[in-house]
Amino acid sequence: MARRVRPLWTSVPRQVRARVRRWRARGKSVAFVPTMGALHAGHLALIARARRAADRVVVSLFVNPLQFDNVNDLKAYPRDFTRDLGILSGAKVDLVFAPRADVFYAKDHATRVVVEGLDRVLEGAHRKGHFTGVATVVTKLLHVVEPDQLWLGQKDAQQVAVLKRMVRDLDLPVAVRVGATVREKDGLAMSSRNARLSADERAQAPALYAALRAGAQRLLHPGRAPAVHVAELAMHVVLARAKLLRVDYATLVDPRTFSAPGRDVRRGLLVVAARFPSARLIDNLPVRLGGAR
Amino acid sequence: MARRVRPLWTSVPRQVRARVRRWRARGKSVAFVPTMGALHAGHLALIARARRAADRVVVSLFVNPLQFDNVNDLKAYPRDFTRDLGILSGAKVDLVFAPRADVFYAKDHATRVVVEGLDRVLEGAHRKGHFTGVATVVTKLLHVVEPDQLWLGQKDAQQVAVLKRMVRDLDLPVAVRVGATVREKDGLAMSSRNARLSADERAQAPALYAALRAGAQRLLHPGRAPAVHVAELAMHVVLARAKLLRVDYATLVDPRTFSAPGRDVRRGLLVVAARFPSARLIDNLPVRLGGAR
Repeated sequence: MARRVRPLWTSVPRQVRARVRRWRARGKSVAFVPTMGALHAGHLALIARARRAADRVVVSLFVNPLQFDNVNDLKAYPRDFTRDLGILSGAKVDLVFAPRADVFYAKDHATRVVVEGLDRVLEGAHRKGHFTGVATVVTKLLHVVEPDQLWLGQKDAQQVAVLKRMVRDLDLPVAVRVGATVREKDGLAMSSRNARLSADERAQAPALYAALRAGAQRLLHPGRAPAVHVAELAMHVVLARAKLLRVDYATLVDPRTFSAPGRDVRRGLLVVAARFPSARLIDNLPVRLGGAR
Repeated sequence: MARRVRPLWTSVPRQVRARVRRWRARGKSVAFVPTMGALHAGHLALIARARRAADRVVVSLFVNPLQFDNVNDLKAYPRDFTRDLGILSGAKVDLVFAPRADVFYAKDHATRVVVEGLDRVLEGAHRKGHFTGVATVVTKLLHVVEPDQLWLGQKDAQQVAVLKRMVRDLDLPVAVRVGATVREKDGLAMSSRNARLSADERAQAPALYAALRAGAQRLLHPGRAPAVHVAELAMHVVLARAKLLRVDYATLVDPRTFSAPGRDVRRGLLVVAARFPSARLIDNLPVRLGGAR
């Protein structure tokens, strides 16, 4: 029987739910990739990974007002629905959910999903309420889409930690999968915010990844001083050369807690955040930790 | 084919999820009744209503530590698993989920579901963190059970308001249904906490319902003074006769917000909370509001 042509996108939650339930009733596995639009090669790599891992792929396009602590950042966030939809159509996505903010959040919306602890450090400390906004919207999206897999990008590593914790704590019936960070040739991690950088800022932006690599190098070959301090110092030295940026943090954390790793932790994460006048950027690099700390 | 005999209860979330999914895949509707055990006729009436409304009924038995603001109240809460299981077996429940607290909440559990506003007034004000504990555990239970219907008792009216708001705000795919309060012959609302009352306290406990009826009477037949104030005064007069209790509140609210009803609100709720030395009791009575306020 010929497959009926259905519209690629909808803003109506119950249409998404009905479609996904029909797929699942027929034994199809469903992967979900939440995005805020402004799609770039990083999103496409994530969608391609999801495509290989599941029978159907649902992508959401939603600039979630709840996760912006800064109204100017929300206003400046790039939006081009037609362009994004064209890209997703080319990426063989099965369904796009693009809710309207004023419908998705009722006027008297009052419920928040809070992941305590993780929401207070690093990105959480620099962007008040950000992770509560992320956890709340992803909970809503998961309830609408009801996927088997939730695909997230490693670039937003603390977001991954928050959502993994949330999924476990709330017994959400979904597997969290993580796609590797996609980088420009000069090492800059793909991000929708890169488009806002001036030419001079763009020229200095690879400093974040360069700093992470310098830090990782020092962890691999520790000298006599505590390796963590040497690594963090090395990151700051590299970042200091990029005169247009100001460092929010550059440090080594446990990727599950985003606090200093305990002595028994074998997998660490170097994380960095820095502000250019036009945009704030983050990046990270997983590292293996030896016993030499 | 003969139906296999399965155990009535389990403490393992994935066993519950698997069983319910098989039912739903066969087109069976599933109702869920969360309880903290210490079952009484009120629970049984709720289960019987759920039984009539769905093909399968799942009941949870779980004294949720997260919703107790008072450690003594948590310790004093009656627990008799064997008795409860016997009652549920007689009530033709299909599956009982009785998680272990130390497994259901991981040691580093960090996620909270907060329903802002409703968690600050009346019961929320008197029991700090209570509704966050309720919202969090019900979210977890709904993710494990994945029912079509969530059945709640009207006796805990503010809990109903909190959970209805949460289900709507988070797009939880479940219909919230409410069962009427079941009362002793003298009007006392059934509650697991009634068992803790002394004989003298038990004798005075019907004052709560008597106060609600007195308040409703004044709303039906308003005089010249504002009916709301007259009704609240009438409730306090009745409660004052019960010498062993102290009133936490006795007032008229909008059942959706638990704040003072606006002039256009047609359905009000009289609510009362009072403390005996041995237990704190609550009750409520829905009322129609005229234009005479």
